[in-house]
Amino acid sequence: MQKIVEEKIPIERLELPAEQAKEKFTRLGQKYKVEMIDDLVKNEGVSSVSLYKQGDFIDLCRGPHLPDTGKVRAFRLLTTAGAYWRGDENNPMLTRIYGTAFFDEKQLTEHIERIEEAKKRDHRILGKQLGLFLISNAVGPGLPLWLPKGTIIRIELQNWLQEELFKQGYQFVFTPHIGKVDLYRTSGHYPYYEHGLFPAMEVEQGQAYLLKPMNCPHHIQIYLSAPRTYRNLPLRLAEFGTVYRLEQSGELSGLIRVRGFTQDDAHIFCTPEQLLEEVESCANLAKMVLETVGLNDYRVRIGLRDPDSSKYTGSTENWDLAEDNIRQVVRKLQLDYTEEPGEAAFYGPKIDFITKDCIGREWQLGTIQVDYNLPERFNLEYIGPDNAPHRPIMIHRAPLGSLDRFIGILIEHYAGAFPLWLAPVQVAVLPVSEKSAEYAQKVLKHLRDAKLRAEVDTSPDKIGAKIRRWTMEKVPYMFIIGRREVVNETVSVRKRKIGQVGTFQLTEVIELLKIERDSRGSKEAFADAAGG
Amino acid sequence: MQKIVEEKIPIERLELPAEQAKEKFTRLGQKYKVEMIDDLVKNEGVSSVSLYKQGDFIDLCRGPHLPDTGKVRAFRLLTTAGAYWRGDENNPMLTRIYGTAFFDEKQLTEHIERIEEAKKRDHRILGKQLGLFLISNAVGPGLPLWLPKGTIIRIELQNWLQEELFKQGYQFVFTPHIGKVDLYRTSGHYPYYEHGLFPAMEVEQGQAYLLKPMNCPHHIQIYLSAPRTYRNLPLRLAEFGTVYRLEQSGELSGLIRVRGFTQDDAHIFCTPEQLLEEVESCANLAKMVLETVGLNDYRVRIGLRDPDSSKYTGSTENWDLAEDNIRQVVRKLQLDYTEEPGEAAFYGPKIDFITKDCIGREWQLGTIQVDYNLPERFNLEYIGPDNAPHRPIMIHRAPLGSLDRFIGILIEHYAGAFPLWLAPVQVAVLPVSEKSAEYAQKVLKHLRDAKLRAEVDTSPDKIGAKIRRWTMEKVPYMFIIGRREVVNETVSVRKRKIGQVGTFQLTEVIELLKIERDSRGSKEAFADAAGG
Repeated sequence: MQKIVEEKIPIERLELPAEQAKEKFTRLGQKYKVEMIDDLVKNEGVSSVSLYKQGDFIDLCRGPHLPDTGKVRAFRLLTTAGAYWRGDENNPMLTRIYGTAFFDEKQLTEHIERIEEAKKRDHRILGKQLGLFLISNAVGPGLPLWLPKGTIIRIELQNWLQEELFKQGYQFVFTPHIGKVDLYRTSGHYPYYEHGLFPAMEVEQGQAYLLKPMNCPHHIQIYLSAPRTYRNLPLRLAEFGTVYRLEQSGELSGLIRVRGFTQDDAHIFCTPEQLLEEVESCANLAKMVLETVGLNDYRVRIGLRDPDSSKYTGSTENWDLAEDNIRQVVRKLQLDYTEEPGEAAFYGPKIDFITKDCIGREWQLGTIQVDYNLPERFNLEYIGPDNAPHRPIMIHRAPLGSLDRFIGILIEHYAGAFPLWLAPVQVAVLPVSEKSAEYAQKVLKHLRDAKLRAEVDTSPDKIGAKIRRWTMEKVPYMFIIGRREVVNETVSVRKRKIGQVGTFQLTEVIELLKIERDSRGSKEAFADAAGG
Repeated sequence: MQKIVEEKIPIERLELPAEQAKEKFTRLGQKYKVEMIDDLVKNEGVSSVSLYKQGDFIDLCRGPHLPDTGKVRAFRLLTTAGAYWRGDENNPMLTRIYGTAFFDEKQLTEHIERIEEAKKRDHRILGKQLGLFLISNAVGPGLPLWLPKGTIIRIELQNWLQEELFKQGYQFVFTPHIGKVDLYRTSGHYPYYEHGLFPAMEVEQGQAYLLKPMNCPHHIQIYLSAPRTYRNLPLRLAEFGTVYRLEQSGELSGLIRVRGFTQDDAHIFCTPEQLLEEVESCANLAKMVLETVGLNDYRVRIGLRDPDSSKYTGSTENWDLAEDNIRQVVRKLQLDYTEEPGEAAFYGPKIDFITKDCIGREWQLGTIQVDYNLPERFNLEYIGPDNAPHRPIMIHRAPLGSLDRFIGILIEHYAGAFPLWLAPVQVAVLPVSEKSAEYAQKVLKHLRDAKLRAEVDTSPDKIGAKIRRWTMEKVPYMFIIGRREVVNETVSVRKRKIGQVGTFQLTEVIELLKIERDSRGSKEAFADAAGG
C-alpha cells in the first residue's frame, strides 16, 4: 500500500457499454465482474457501466475515486476475512480486505482508538464477563435472561424510578402480557403492525390472543373501567411492562435489538388545558434520568407534522396546541433542540432524547409522544366542567425507553464500572491472611446491615491476586483487612480507578458509602481524599 | 315445609325394574323422570331403579332418605332459580328450590352466617368495590389487570419477600415470558402437559415458542450458564415470574383460578448433604409468611411415594433421603402435619401448607417440592469435593404460591380491611370544614414525607359523610382536622373498627404509624389506647 501511494499512480475513469465491459472482464478472467454486469443490466436496466483504471489494474466501480493514489494520506489495513461469493457456501471463497483512511494521522488514530475503546466496552462481552445477562439458544435469540448481578441493576433502576414516579403522582398498574387479538384490532396495531408481532394463539373457537407489543391498550382498559371527570385527570398510569416484538433474527444484537424487553412505560390521560404541564414534567423526568446516570451530553429532536401531508389524525387545532406546548417546554427547559417537520407519528408530535455516551456515540433514549388517535379509537371520554363529555389526550412516555437497552448502553457508557448505587457488588472485603478472616466476616455483617452489597474473598490467594480479581470485577470499593486493621477495628479503603484512599473507622466509612449510594453518586465518598 | 315435618310422613324405598318405573312415571305425567331412566339404562346399564314414596308423592332417587319427614330438624329454604331442562335454552324452564338442613338450629345459624360472611368477603365484589383489580372482557377471561390500589398490595408483598430472600442468600433473576418449544420438550412439559398450555407460536421455519407455564426451565438455563462446584451451592434463584396456563374458561374464578399469574418462585440447586437445611429454611419461610399476614391456623400435608407404584423417577435412596429430611423438618418446626402416601409428585416428595382463613375455609398456599427429575432431564452437574461430577437436587418452592391468588385470599381473609402496611390508602385526612383545609394539606405533606400513603378528602361534604366514605374504603386511619386541631397543630385519630382513639401531636402519631407499618402490624400503634 505504501509503495502504491508513493508511486502516485493516476486513476482514470472509463465508461463502456455493458457488452464491451463484459468482453473486457472476460478476457481478464474476472468472471465475478461479468456476473455483476449481467445483474446490473437485468435488475437496474443499465446500458453502460463505469470502470476505473490504475496502472495495470482495472476495476468495475460506480466511484468516485481519488485522482491519483498519492492523495491517500493516513490509512490502516484493519483485517481480512474469507467470504463466499454472494454469501452462498456452495460458491468459491474470496478474500475481503478491510481498511480505513483519513485526511491525517491524528484523525486516524482517534478513530482506531474509538474502535478499540468500543470493543472494550462491548456490552455483549462485558455482560458475559461480569455475569450480567445471558442470551441462551435454548430459550431463544433476542430474549435476554437477566442473571443475578444484572437483575440487581434492573431492580435498582426500577426502585429509583418507581419512587420518583410515586412522588410525581403516578399510579402503578400491572397488566397481563397477552390480550385478545380484537383489542389490537381496535388499537390499529393488528393487522397493520402484524409483521412485528409474534403470531396469534387461538385458544377457543374464534378467540385468539397476542403477546402484547405495547402496554397502551391494557392501560386504556383501566381508563375505561371507571367513569372519569376532569377532576380525576390527569390520570398517570405507569408500568414496567415487558413487551414482545418479532424483530428479524438477523437484526438482533445483545440488549440493543431484542425480541422481549421491559419498557419503563406510562400513559398520561389529560385535558387539553393540562397538556403543557404534563409534557413539561415528562421532559423534566427524562432530563433528570439522563443527568443522574451521567449521560449529560444530550439533545432533543422534536418530530412535527409534515405541513404538506394529510396522513395525520386529529384536528389542526389539536396539533397546533401540542406542537406549541412542546416548543414552549423545550425552550423553558433550555434544551438543545432541533425541529424535524414530517418526523411526527401520524397520531401526534413527539420529543426524542438523543444522548452521546462517553466515547461520542449517539443513542436515542427517552421519548414523549402526544397521541390523539387511541383516545378516538377507544372512544375515551371524561366529563368536563360543562357537564358534557370530552375526549382526553394521551401521552406515551418512557424516560429510559427499554430497561434492557438502557442497561446495555449503560454497560458501554460505564465500561462495566457501575457507580456505587448500581454496582452488583458494592464492596469486596479482602482479608490479607487467614488471621484477619474472622474480622473480615464482622466487617461483612456491618456492611450488609447497612444494606450494602458486600462479599468477602475467602480464597487462599495472596492479597495482590485478590485485588486483581476484584479489579476485573470492577467493584467500586475494596476493604483490605490486615493485622493493623484487625487491631484497630479499621479498614483500609481502595477505590476503583483511584487506588488507596486511606484507613478509616468502619462505622465512619460505612456512613460515607451510604451517602454516596443514596445520592446516586452526586456526593462521592472519597472525591476529596483522592483529589478528584 | 313446617307442616310436612309435623305430619311425620313415613318415607318408603321401592326398587322397580326400569321398564315398570318408566310406566309408573309416564302415568304420573313425569316425562323428565322417564328421560332420566332411559339415560340410566343407556349410559350406566342399570336394569332397576330406586324410588322414594312419601304420602302421594313418588320420586326417582338414589337415596338415602330419612325414615320419615319428622326427622327434619333445623332447615332453611335459601333461594329459587329458573333452570332450563338439561341446561339447554331450547328446553322448557323448571324451577329449582335450594335449601339446607342441620341437626340443630345453632349449626344452621352458624352455617347461614358463614355463607353471609363469605358473600360479604367475596374478593370479586370487594376487588371491584375497592378498585383493586379488573377482569376485562376486552383483554380476556382469567387475565386480571391490577389497578393502582391492588398494585400497591402487590408491590408491598414483593418488596417484603424480596428483602427477606436477599437476607437469606437468594439471588434474583428475570427471565422472558416465552421460550422455545424444545425447552419444554426437554423438561417434559410438552407435549405431556400441552392441554394446559397456550398454543405454540411458530415464528421461523420449525422454530416455535411457548408462553411459559413455569419458570424452572429458564432458571435451569441460568444454572447451566456457568460451571458449578459444590462450593457454589446451594444456588438459590428467585423470580416473581408471571406464567400462563390455559385453564378451561368455565373454571375461571376471580383471582383464585386464572390463566395468568405471578409466582413468588424460586429454585434451589443443592447437594444431597444440603437438602435438609434447605428444606428447613423453605418451611420456615412459608411459616413466617403465613404468620405475618395473620393466617395462623395452618397445617402441613406431606406427599410421599406410593410404596406399591413404580411411576417415580429417582433412586430409592434419594427418595428415602428426601422423605426423611422432610419428616425431620416438620417435626423440628413442630408443624401440625399429615403424611399422605401416594400424594408425591412423580419427581419427588413435597410439603403443602394448608391454611384456614378467619371464617374457617381451607386454602392451599405455600408449597415445597423436591425434584430429582429435571436435574436428570437437563443433565445438571456440579463438581464435588472428590473432583468428580455429581447430580444436584432441585427444590421448587413458593411460599405464597401465586401472588394473584394469595391476594385474592387475603382480600377475603381481611374482608378488604388490609393491615396498615398493605393498605392502599393508609391515612385519610378529613378536614371538618374549609377553614381547616390548609392545615390538612400540611398534614398530608408530613404523612407523605414519612412515606405514608395518604389522601385528603377535599369534598364539600359534612364530616359525617366523609367518615362514612372512608369507612367504606376500609382505610386503617382517619385524621379528623377541626378548629381545635388547627390551633394546636394536632390530629384527632380515628382507627378502623375501633373509632376515636384520641388527639395527638402530628409528629408523635406519625412515629407510631411508622412503627406499626414497619413491624407489619406486630406492633399496633393504638392497641392500648383502644384497650385492644
